[in-house]
Amino acid sequence: MSFLRDTVERMAAYVPGEQPREGARVIKLNTNENPYPPSPRVVQAISAELADAGARLRLYSDPAALSLRDAASDVTGFPVDQILAGNGSDELLSLLMRAVVEPGQIIEYPYPTYVLYETLAEAHGARVRTPNFGRDFALPRELLGSDARIVFIASPNSPSGNAHSLEALDELAASLRHGLLVVDEAYADFTDSSALPLARSRPNVVVLRTLSKSYSLAGMRIGLLFASREIVHGVFKVKDSYNLDRLAIVAGAAALRDDAWMRASAAKIRATRGRLVERLSAHGLDVLPSSANFVFARLPSADLARETYRSLKSRGILVRYFDRPLLDDGLRITVGTDEEISELLEALGSELPRVG
Amino acid sequence: MSFLRDTVERMAAYVPGEQPREGARVIKLNTNENPYPPSPRVVQAISAELADAGARLRLYSDPAALSLRDAASDVTGFPVDQILAGNGSDELLSLLMRAVVEPGQIIEYPYPTYVLYETLAEAHGARVRTPNFGRDFALPRELLGSDARIVFIASPNSPSGNAHSLEALDELAASLRHGLLVVDEAYADFTDSSALPLARSRPNVVVLRTLSKSYSLAGMRIGLLFASREIVHGVFKVKDSYNLDRLAIVAGAAALRDDAWMRASAAKIRATRGRLVERLSAHGLDVLPSSANFVFARLPSADLARETYRSLKSRGILVRYFDRPLLDDGLRITVGTDEEISELLEALGSELPRVG
Repeated sequence: MSFLRDTVERMAAYVPGEQPREGARVIKLNTNENPYPPSPRVVQAISAELADAGARLRLYSDPAALSLRDAASDVTGFPVDQILAGNGSDELLSLLMRAVVEPGQIIEYPYPTYVLYETLAEAHGARVRTPNFGRDFALPRELLGSDARIVFIASPNSPSGNAHSLEALDELAASLRHGLLVVDEAYADFTDSSALPLARSRPNVVVLRTLSKSYSLAGMRIGLLFASREIVHGVFKVKDSYNLDRLAIVAGAAALRDDAWMRASAAKIRATRGRLVERLSAHGLDVLPSSANFVFARLPSADLARETYRSLKSRGILVRYFDRPLLDDGLRITVGTDEEISELLEALGSELPRVG
Repeated sequence: MSFLRDTVERMAAYVPGEQPREGARVIKLNTNENPYPPSPRVVQAISAELADAGARLRLYSDPAALSLRDAASDVTGFPVDQILAGNGSDELLSLLMRAVVEPGQIIEYPYPTYVLYETLAEAHGARVRTPNFGRDFALPRELLGSDARIVFIASPNSPSGNAHSLEALDELAASLRHGLLVVDEAYADFTDSSALPLARSRPNVVVLRTLSKSYSLAGMRIGLLFASREIVHGVFKVKDSYNLDRLAIVAGAAALRDDAWMRASAAKIRATRGRLVERLSAHGLDVLPSSANFVFARLPSADLARETYRSLKSRGILVRYFDRPLLDDGLRITVGTDEEISELLEALGSELPRVG
């Protein structure tokens, strides 16, 4: 007899991208981290919060994370009472599931996308419907008119890298029967479009952002939710009171207030991305246009993709390989620094005669 | 029409203890924070993690929080694979609910206790059974043989402050029909008994600890779960991958490894607690014996308790007042520094002629 719920007993754990041991000499292009450091104001803000030998750490953090939400409001123009802060956008996804979906109800998302939606549904006991993307990764038409409680759309999508237009997302939101459209914009700072205007105009649209990628703060776990007051209020009730610690709150606020630093970092990554796409295409790989800080490159076969993944790994270069339908002939490569990408291309150059 | 689950729509948000604005001149004895700073090693460890202008923050934290769990294992002697780290023990309570209880199933806990159990049950859609404590706050006999999926016991209990004996908890665990006994030991470092041995010997016992109180790290959100491998594995599947950020992990490990600092801090608090209990009793208040870093003191009537709470607040001294059955004639007072407690007693001295 198990003490666990059947649904938890049965589920597989979400497997995050491989994390090499600290200090290992590895070029890490597998979990879409930013190769550049966060704004110097982040360390300044954390150091200030550590004043008096850390005496402030003995006090609870602000349950409302107001200073962080104020900064998010100033940067986006979104009203502060329509913003919620989470312990990473992963927590916000989990909270949305628990605040909106009854176990047994349906959620929907196109396949392939961020694997966590599936994990969260399994943990919660929600049923899933997953229409397949076509080769171009445009929104599947079957989503229109969906009766799901939540439709999750990652835009830019992972691992494909493409963003959906505001018009396509608006059409989808307008068509939903009684559910929410959650647009997961983890990578939106690496492109020019965003669904934030929809979260203001449509009560059934929620937009999620994270400071993990563009703001170089994956290690601090800071996510933001933008939605109607009703949704923000409901999700607030379900969240742990003190879901962000003191240092995450001040780090996030400082990072947001140095938006120029983030933009410069994202601009460098976009430039490197252009070079990477060009070179991979020249090598004969089928590279999807990317609006994110990674690219998805298809090889002639799944065996070759798997072999290339392994041989890169043996050279100390980690990329992401997904052994799943529609993805198993490709590699997802995070855009690192120019130097890292040069090393990757060099390694691929000596592999590709064998695999290409 | 609401986008939220009915159960979420209906529930009241958990109201954490009042947090005065930073910098306000307030004696804060309302949320059981530690009046002493954390170990100096905490700030050292955080500063080390911030090396190279915070470059490490761009990388995800360890999903397994291994360095923190290793430290917890060394301090407690518990096997590391039977320990899980949470974003505060609040997160661990929420994860247990979601990993173990189907919506509609029953959880049980004696009343009055930590209010969060009720909030979590409402958010999840679990039903609750809450036998009342008697005046002595011993475990209600009705709990024996419970068929609940989880029985939550805070020991030491809040707001009463009393701890349950290992024997009483063992008897309860042995009697449960098919559920878990979760012993919430947030305040255990302020007394001498712990149910940790039960979490090793009985597969249906889970013990929770937090670094918020005794380790002076409420602002860093670090909780620990001790249980069987099966439970740890199941709860791990439900948790967000990166539930602790990098700074919380290093802060927690450093704090645990300076156990002597925590013991010295707890010893000072226990000494002050003795003086507080003695003086309150001398004033004619009915003070429950406390094994925690707070005391619960009863006044002759609910009106007087409420009035005393308000007049202390007007003097800049915050204590906790619960306007709920069995509690509305009392005040929960956190044990602060000796100076803070002297100020409290002086203020009470000028109030008590009116209220006593």
